[in-house]
Amino acid sequence: MARSEGSIFKLCFLCSVIANLFFGVNLYVGRRGVGRWKWSSDEVNVQGLSWSGRAAAEAESAAARECSGHGRAFLDGAVADGRPACECNTCYGGPDCSLFLPSCSANADGGDPLFLEPFWKQHAESSAVVVAGWHRMSYSFSDQTFLSQELESLLRKLHSQVGNAITDDKYILFGAGSTQLLNAAVHALSHLNSSFPASAVASIPYYALYQMQTEFFDSADCSFQGDPAHWKNATNTTGDIIEFVTAPNNPNGQLNEAILHGPNVKTIHDRAYYWPHFTGIPSPADEDLTIFTISKLTGHAGSRFGWAFIRNEEVYQRMNTFLQLNTMGVSRDTQLRAMKLLKVIIEDGGREIFKFGYKTMTKRWDRLRKTLSMSNRFSLQKIAPENCTYFQKVREPTPAYAWVKCEREEDRNCIEILNAAKILGRGGSIFHDDDRYARLSLIRSNDDFDLLISRLESLVSGEDGAKIM
Amino acid sequence: MARSEGSIFKLCFLCSVIANLFFGVNLYVGRRGVGRWKWSSDEVNVQGLSWSGRAAAEAESAAARECSGHGRAFLDGAVADGRPACECNTCYGGPDCSLFLPSCSANADGGDPLFLEPFWKQHAESSAVVVAGWHRMSYSFSDQTFLSQELESLLRKLHSQVGNAITDDKYILFGAGSTQLLNAAVHALSHLNSSFPASAVASIPYYALYQMQTEFFDSADCSFQGDPAHWKNATNTTGDIIEFVTAPNNPNGQLNEAILHGPNVKTIHDRAYYWPHFTGIPSPADEDLTIFTISKLTGHAGSRFGWAFIRNEEVYQRMNTFLQLNTMGVSRDTQLRAMKLLKVIIEDGGREIFKFGYKTMTKRWDRLRKTLSMSNRFSLQKIAPENCTYFQKVREPTPAYAWVKCEREEDRNCIEILNAAKILGRGGSIFHDDDRYARLSLIRSNDDFDLLISRLESLVSGEDGAKIM
Repeated sequence: MARSEGSIFKLCFLCSVIANLFFGVNLYVGRRGVGRWKWSSDEVNVQGLSWSGRAAAEAESAAARECSGHGRAFLDGAVADGRPACECNTCYGGPDCSLFLPSCSANADGGDPLFLEPFWKQHAESSAVVVAGWHRMSYSFSDQTFLSQELESLLRKLHSQVGNAITDDKYILFGAGSTQLLNAAVHALSHLNSSFPASAVASIPYYALYQMQTEFFDSADCSFQGDPAHWKNATNTTGDIIEFVTAPNNPNGQLNEAILHGPNVKTIHDRAYYWPHFTGIPSPADEDLTIFTISKLTGHAGSRFGWAFIRNEEVYQRMNTFLQLNTMGVSRDTQLRAMKLLKVIIEDGGREIFKFGYKTMTKRWDRLRKTLSMSNRFSLQKIAPENCTYFQKVREPTPAYAWVKCEREEDRNCIEILNAAKILGRGGSIFHDDDRYARLSLIRSNDDFDLLISRLESLVSGEDGAKIM
Repeated sequence: MARSEGSIFKLCFLCSVIANLFFGVNLYVGRRGVGRWKWSSDEVNVQGLSWSGRAAAEAESAAARECSGHGRAFLDGAVADGRPACECNTCYGGPDCSLFLPSCSANADGGDPLFLEPFWKQHAESSAVVVAGWHRMSYSFSDQTFLSQELESLLRKLHSQVGNAITDDKYILFGAGSTQLLNAAVHALSHLNSSFPASAVASIPYYALYQMQTEFFDSADCSFQGDPAHWKNATNTTGDIIEFVTAPNNPNGQLNEAILHGPNVKTIHDRAYYWPHFTGIPSPADEDLTIFTISKLTGHAGSRFGWAFIRNEEVYQRMNTFLQLNTMGVSRDTQLRAMKLLKVIIEDGGREIFKFGYKTMTKRWDRLRKTLSMSNRFSLQKIAPENCTYFQKVREPTPAYAWVKCEREEDRNCIEILNAAKILGRGGSIFHDDDRYARLSLIRSNDDFDLLISRLESLVSGEDGAKIM
């Protein structure tokens, strides 16, 4: 009996060991074999990935490259060691961006909106998009337009959530950034009522592109005439007058309003910065021609996507013809991506992104004000607090740019003084203003901003008679 | 001893059973638990997907929508039943595109290059691309340009593989399709040597956009003067002459050459169709200014991506300024996608895609020729066979468009006759030619082409005195 019992146990034990081997090998091969089992935390109901897995893996491999927090690797970057290399922030170098370049100038020059990059890294899952090889190959959408109706709906919904524009009863057009739309608008508004060349004006200081575009593209139809103040009592000119109104203004953050009014005055409202990141939203814009861009909303300057709301049908048709003959509309790849980004924002009514943007900008302004508070040499623009219907409070503006004034009599060229202290920015004359002013960009990467503050601190602490804390 | 041996076996058996339970539960929970284990056949070395899985699942869900082979669902399409709805080919309808609309006209109008859509569906895995939420938010690449160096390298490599352009010692620029680059080229070449307005010319029949763009954008700097033949003996005009040379030509497929030569003649070579899909490649283009577009190479018209090779530095700089002030370069999203598509092509030296394109176009031309061979009423353009250095043989051209002539004396308006027979196309006068001609597009979807043949068969079989097979 004992013998027989022993044999049964031996048999059971053998079976059990075989079963163990089976399970063990199964798990091992499943995880490490020719194919791989992958864990996914997504909640989308899908049986398993087939054709998109490789692209996903490539993107994650690029994103996983360690760049010391001072850079990032992109899928289409130069390749090093078999995968995309780190692309470092200004003033950082080395294969993993860990090398600080001490003699490098702080970059506060262009309006690269990288202050929002961390937001998108935090929302990696909801903001990623897969473009299939056969995605929208046609020239047109199925309604024969160049505009995605889904994207249009999202844009109108966003403005209604934020309360920064009334979009009812207005036509919409998409452009390659606000850049192309500004160009289309000037072209459409020239010769609208008159066969004489139009005159374009913008209050000083103004964004240089207005003048550069008008002079480069429309010299025969429209001449750039500088400040509208000169035209205030002379609106009965032969040609039309086109006024650019930028609110908040680039470079100084003021909520500009139109100076000129009258039957032959047409206004282009550039609302690139009219988002809660930068300003209170006292009331929704409700203008004849208003231009927005994704660049200063989500931070995707590189995507080249903007949109315009237009009240008048003739102006809309003329702008539409411009956009069709110029580029046949905006890339469908870009429209797909803009849609995905907007969906992330709209999901919570913009709460997260605007909180992130406002908080980041507030912190930066606090640090900047604190740094310059010790200075007698440099001052910052003053902008009155605004009621913000979005945040439901009165708030300090946190503009994208500091408009710095050099106060000393002898400091006639402010940007030269900043450059000498290893700070890059833009001199006042670029904005048609006095060179006693300079624009410093506050919307770039954290690294750029940190270095800007550090260079300003050195500059201020070296002042004769700097205030003592 | 037996007793003791039995106890040891019992203990071992118990341990083994526990181990079995552990392995079993582990496998079961791993496959069916809160998350999901997914099998991937890709060979990219990656531990597992995290943030990109959801986007991948969304894209696959849209792509999996059944549209009866007569449509497809896109990720950014209108939503039905919780996921993107089918967008049907012309003449098909219903929620799954299974409904043929019998009274619908065959669409042979625009140059939508959907004949290549099946190629990309066959290469779904290698052509998909994941765009991360933080992908290239900057205005510029790390070298401060608006152009991806990786993409530039791929384009130069492709031309060297195909043998259709010499790119050494030439500048390259990217545009939103060839559309924007044509525009930039006219602007750059006007007033290059002379302060007088330039004249633009193109051999009849020519692509209507040349004239439309020149008249819309450059009326003050450049006037469109039609056929260059009138100017052949009058090149000593006061202003410059800009000749558009399209080879193969749109609409008739001829390998046009420049008509005008001389110190004040500038030539824009539009090489949109200079790919083995459509023509033999007798020799590489080696011209001062040559424009290509991805639209007629990969079929991605909707991506709006083109490129130009430019020999002269001044012309390059002027075009570059145009592109910067017009749109600040081409969307980085588009450049990323173009890169992925080009990688698929380059991997085998273009063999697969050009074989696919050439075969498709050859089949379509065979069917079209056969259909019209029974007709006395309609004739097709004749193009001499060309040596193709790419396929290493002499081959019949397979142009993108049929240039149909109505032969009957009374059929003065060919497109009207085609329209009456439920065929959409473009009349000759759109190309500044006689309306006795009409252009029929042969590069659209299989459905469009099949219906075109069917409508033509009906038309031809109804002819008085049609030839009998």
